[in-house]
Amino acid sequence: MDERDIRLLKAIADLGTGSPERLHEETGIPVSTIHYRLNNLKDDGVIENDLYDVNLEEFGLGVTVLVEVLADYDGPYREVGEKLLAVEGVTQAHFTMGETDFVVVARLTGSEMVERLISDFEAIEEVERTNSTYVISTLRDTHNALQSYSLETLIEELAEE
Amino acid sequence: MDERDIRLLKAIADLGTGSPERLHEETGIPVSTIHYRLNNLKDDGVIENDLYDVNLEEFGLGVTVLVEVLADYDGPYREVGEKLLAVEGVTQAHFTMGETDFVVVARLTGSEMVERLISDFEAIEEVERTNSTYVISTLRDTHNALQSYSLETLIEELAEE
Amino acid sequence: MDERDIRLLKAIADLGTGSPERLHEETGIPVSTIHYRLNNLKDDGVIENDLYDVNLEEFGLGVTVLVEVLADYDGPYREVGEKLLAVEGVTQAHFTMGETDFVVVARLTGSEMVERLISDFEAIEEVERTNSTYVISTLRDTHNALQSYSLETLIEELAEE
Amino acid sequence: MDERDIRLLKAIADLGTGSPERLHEETGIPVSTIHYRLNNLKDDGVIENDLYDVNLEEFGLGVTVLVEVLADYDGPYREVGEKLLAVEGVTQAHFTMGETDFVVVARLTGSEMVERLISDFEAIEEVERTNSTYVISTLRDTHNALQSYSLETLIEELAEE
Amino acid sequence: MDERDIRLLKAIADLGTGSPERLHEETGIPVSTIHYRLNNLKDDGVIENDLYDVNLEEFGLGVTVLVEVLADYDGPYREVGEKLLAVEGVTQAHFTMGETDFVVVARLTGSEMVERLISDFEAIEEVERTNSTYVISTLRDTHNALQSYSLETLIEELAEE
Amino acid sequence: MDERDIRLLKAIADLGTGSPERLHEETGIPVSTIHYRLNNLKDDGVIENDLYDVNLEEFGLGVTVLVEVLADYDGPYREVGEKLLAVEGVTQAHFTMGETDFVVVARLTGSEMVERLISDFEAIEEVERTNSTYVISTLRDTHNALQSYSLETLIEELAEE
Amino acid sequence: MDERDIRLLKAIADLGTGSPERLHEETGIPVSTIHYRLNNLKDDGVIENDLYDVNLEEFGLGVTVLVEVLADYDGPYREVGEKLLAVEGVTQAHFTMGETDFVVVARLTGSEMVERLISDFEAIEEVERTNSTYVISTLRDTHNALQSYSLETLIEELAEE
Amino acid sequence: MDERDIRLLKAIADLGTGSPERLHEETGIPVSTIHYRLNNLKDDGVIENDLYDVNLEEFGLGVTVLVEVLADYDGPYREVGEKLLAVEGVTQAHFTMGETDFVVVARLTGSEMVERLISDFEAIEEVERTNSTYVISTLRDTHNALQSYSLETLIEELAEE
Repeated sequence: MDERDIRLLKAIADLGTGSPERLHEETGIPVSTIHYRLNNLKDDGVIENDLYDVNLEEFGLGVTVLVEVLADYDGPYREVGEKLLAVEGVTQAHFTMGETDFVVVARLTGSEMVERLISDFEAIEEVERTNSTYVISTLRDTHNALQSYSLETLIEELAEE
Repeated sequence: MDERDIRLLKAIADLGTGSPERLHEETGIPVSTIHYRLNNLKDDGVIENDLYDVNLEEFGLGVTVLVEVLADYDGPYREVGEKLLAVEGVTQAHFTMGETDFVVVARLTGSEMVERLISDFEAIEEVERTNSTYVISTLRDTHNALQSYSLETLIEELAEE
Repeated sequence: MDERDIRLLKAIADLGTGSPERLHEETGIPVSTIHYRLNNLKDDGVIENDLYDVNLEEFGLGVTVLVEVLADYDGPYREVGEKLLAVEGVTQAHFTMGETDFVVVARLTGSEMVERLISDFEAIEEVERTNSTYVISTLRDTHNALQSYSLETLIEELAEE
Repeated sequence: MDERDIRLLKAIADLGTGSPERLHEETGIPVSTIHYRLNNLKDDGVIENDLYDVNLEEFGLGVTVLVEVLADYDGPYREVGEKLLAVEGVTQAHFTMGETDFVVVARLTGSEMVERLISDFEAIEEVERTNSTYVISTLRDTHNALQSYSLETLIEELAEE
Repeated sequence: MDERDIRLLKAIADLGTGSPERLHEETGIPVSTIHYRLNNLKDDGVIENDLYDVNLEEFGLGVTVLVEVLADYDGPYREVGEKLLAVEGVTQAHFTMGETDFVVVARLTGSEMVERLISDFEAIEEVERTNSTYVISTLRDTHNALQSYSLETLIEELAEE
Repeated sequence: MDERDIRLLKAIADLGTGSPERLHEETGIPVSTIHYRLNNLKDDGVIENDLYDVNLEEFGLGVTVLVEVLADYDGPYREVGEKLLAVEGVTQAHFTMGETDFVVVARLTGSEMVERLISDFEAIEEVERTNSTYVISTLRDTHNALQSYSLETLIEELAEE
Repeated sequence: MDERDIRLLKAIADLGTGSPERLHEETGIPVSTIHYRLNNLKDDGVIENDLYDVNLEEFGLGVTVLVEVLADYDGPYREVGEKLLAVEGVTQAHFTMGETDFVVVARLTGSEMVERLISDFEAIEEVERTNSTYVISTLRDTHNALQSYSLETLIEELAEE
Repeated sequence: MDERDIRLLKAIADLGTGSPERLHEETGIPVSTIHYRLNNLKDDGVIENDLYDVNLEEFGLGVTVLVEVLADYDGPYREVGEKLLAVEGVTQAHFTMGETDFVVVARLTGSEMVERLISDFEAIEEVERTNSTYVISTLRDTHNALQSYSLETLIEELAEE
């Protein structure tokens, strides 16, 4: 995996498409090269399926961290949220009930990056305290809730709507 | 959105593909119908992009809940994990350091389903206690960490590997 | 305030009515006596308004206690809930998200009754632990949420429904 | 239920009376209309009994939230309490012993209003932190403790006073 | 028990003596009156033994409260301690390891005094937070540890010194 | 300080008297010896005042420990309380509201005795968990609340009773 | 670093000596080889000083974990302690006051070993719960407290003994 | 053990060597005296082995304390860390995930020094709160993780690297 591969995968993530034409527009990489490289990335298991799900371990993003963030803010919480989202590695951010204000999930490469993440959070003016937890292993990680429902339940639930 | 749409979206989620041919094999719905319906779902915003990300609000799955699970187990933790994953609605499950054994994220339709989820968890023999938190609003929810990194960082990090 | 007054006030609370006729049916106290006594109770401030809200201090129920209940149950939580409700003095019981299973509010006469309440809770088989908090003073206690909304908000909110 | 019904129910809650005459004074709605409407509201189950208890679900106030409030104040706590009571939706507020300063109960319409409530609390200068808990289901909610006592206990307790 | 009795008991507590002569010097009450009154107080059970232990319930000091105090101080902790000791009702104050800085025990007359105590603590500049717990019943309260040791242990322990 | 002194001090603590005659009855030590020894103990500062308050440091009881005890019991809590009181060194035991069941204060000689105390507590069948805190220094320790009140407050409070 | 180097370093750790003769006795490696290898290990920075302190990073033991262990035991705590010490990687184990029974420090190679450590702890019968914390970076780690004192303090403290 | 012994032991700790020549350079004590004294210290058990491990009890450093430090800092955490390390008695300091920022271990002589340590920590500007725990007994304390691994595991783990 070299820089071009990364450019491609990053463009797919940002644009939400695997269309070679649109990726070409974004990256300038010739369409035929894109075809060739995407196939290789699929063969190597970096791209896991037709939906372009990426195996993050292959990117060295092997560390998952959960962070509870306690903030002290006067304005709308979304402003604090924006600052949290601006920190690299944050894949999820939830504004929650309970003692904590935000629960954040991040994917990182290792201890050094954990240090950086926490420093970045602590440097946000409104952030009062962070409580991070190391994930030993992730058993499932999808943002597509449909996978976790049976077809029957989905149809029933929908019928109720 | 009717039952056929749901079948299609469920098949996409399970198979990890948007290929009409493979969806036809799985669902028996004619390929031309699949084309037609997927386009409609995109136009309606149910399908959000070319990667077939689904807008869960459209499914009525508007409630997100975080659950900390404290378990008492003698065998491997993965057995407990499997039981947690078997509960409908669970999109993520992490085995973590810290006081809690597992942190689970679930997408649900409402209070009634929250009750069912917690009952299902409590009914698992190894589960000692659950601590659930209601998500007021989700600011970001992706499993694709690449979105949260700049291209520069990705290239640098990779170079270091 | 004597036993007859208490019979009347108890009947009002249970039947949800201040109608002398129905109170007569329930208690056997003559209608004219009921009229006379209710007026006296109003004059004395025991009955606070036309909705028959009662001043609990006059009943010696001057102590309010909040109790978090942690339960360990296999069946439906409502069975545990029923047992909690059966304890005298419990004015509210909520089944909640979070670390605690139930949050209960009770009105009691003093330390002795607090002891009894906690003993009663601890004696319930499914109850694992209780965490009670003494209320120093109650600033508001209504079950009628309409009091806390402005007319404007109520009309707007309703319009949105 | 239209605006006039809401005016009536709000007046009942504020004045503590169901007397058509006094409601007429407050709202300007003709007495005969009041009679007619109150009967309809009873028939529809919005008004639950002769004490004018209101079914809050009918008002869309289906969400109950418990909030622990930690405040930092120099003056009397009642001043902070007043500010908490001024937030719409607050049905109860207790000043308590323990780690928390206030425990508040609120009835709301949904997630949006939860956001607003928490924002309103956080905007109070003396409020340092809030910890809110979502009520999955309320098993009992009365402010009338007499309901939870047997007649025998009431008579005995009173005798002891 | 009247004011003179209180003067006597207070003088005993402050001077650490039951000697009628010294109590006379302090209070100006004639020695013979002191003899007479102390005997009456013993007969009434206000004075419990020859060591002049006082039954605090007789003084209306029936409420015991434990308070954890979290302080933020730059100078020596003893200065904060002095301010805590200056609050009426404080019978013990310990500077402790652990999350809390001080643990205080107080004897009070009722809810109103609890309010005052907590207000007094919160008004101390260095005090950040207080966490008070209501004592339902005290099973033992002595400052004389010798009572809790057997003679054998005392002799052995001493021998080891 | 030798064994005879200890016998005397122990008898004073147990009998609640400093009367040489009664101490003689209890210990068999001649009255004149008792006079002589008590005077010496006062001169040495072991006995601190006329009320026979003892300087526990002189007994090597220099360590104070606070212990929160969480118990699981079906019968009356007092039975558990009795078992706690039976452990040597326990000067106070309170049955409290809050997460903890009992708060205990103990005076001990050192680390070894702390080990023993905790072992003794853990060995009590109903005790589930103990949480002990080391007291770095005790600023006040009296069981006589009168010391902490001004004469004015005592007189006023009493007048209100 | 090969197997022989490891044998040598392990023998040094176990025997508490760097004497080539004693290492020869233990490992059977010729004395001259030992000389040669130890010098190389020093040159490579695996052995850090004349006291044979080892750079654990060179051993791949780059992960430090703190684990709080809550145990439920009837016999002496030392038996539980022995079981904890038997788990590989445990460099420290303290029996502590406070809510936790033991605090353990472990040095490990990575996530897999963390999983194994926690599994090993949870498999100990008396262990009820573990709470592990990932060390992001260790600023100092010595068991030789003398390093952290100035010579002046050591001399003064000693003089006081 | 006199001042010269302390100088020697301190020099060994700081220089990481037991070489009499280098100790002579550092301390000015004649080489022959160093030989003589080190032998005596070994015979007395102050020096425990050839690696010059010191028995800290002999130094009166019999108290071990664990301190969780919560800090509020804007710059790099290492600056706070440096200030913590500057406090005498600190043998370990870890920057950790979780609610706490630092976990520190200290070896001290007694209560007085615990007071000083906590005061020193609290006096550091960035330190917000400390939570100290008294170690009743230490079952193992080494910084040499090799002792806790079997030779087999070390060889296997290394082979995997």
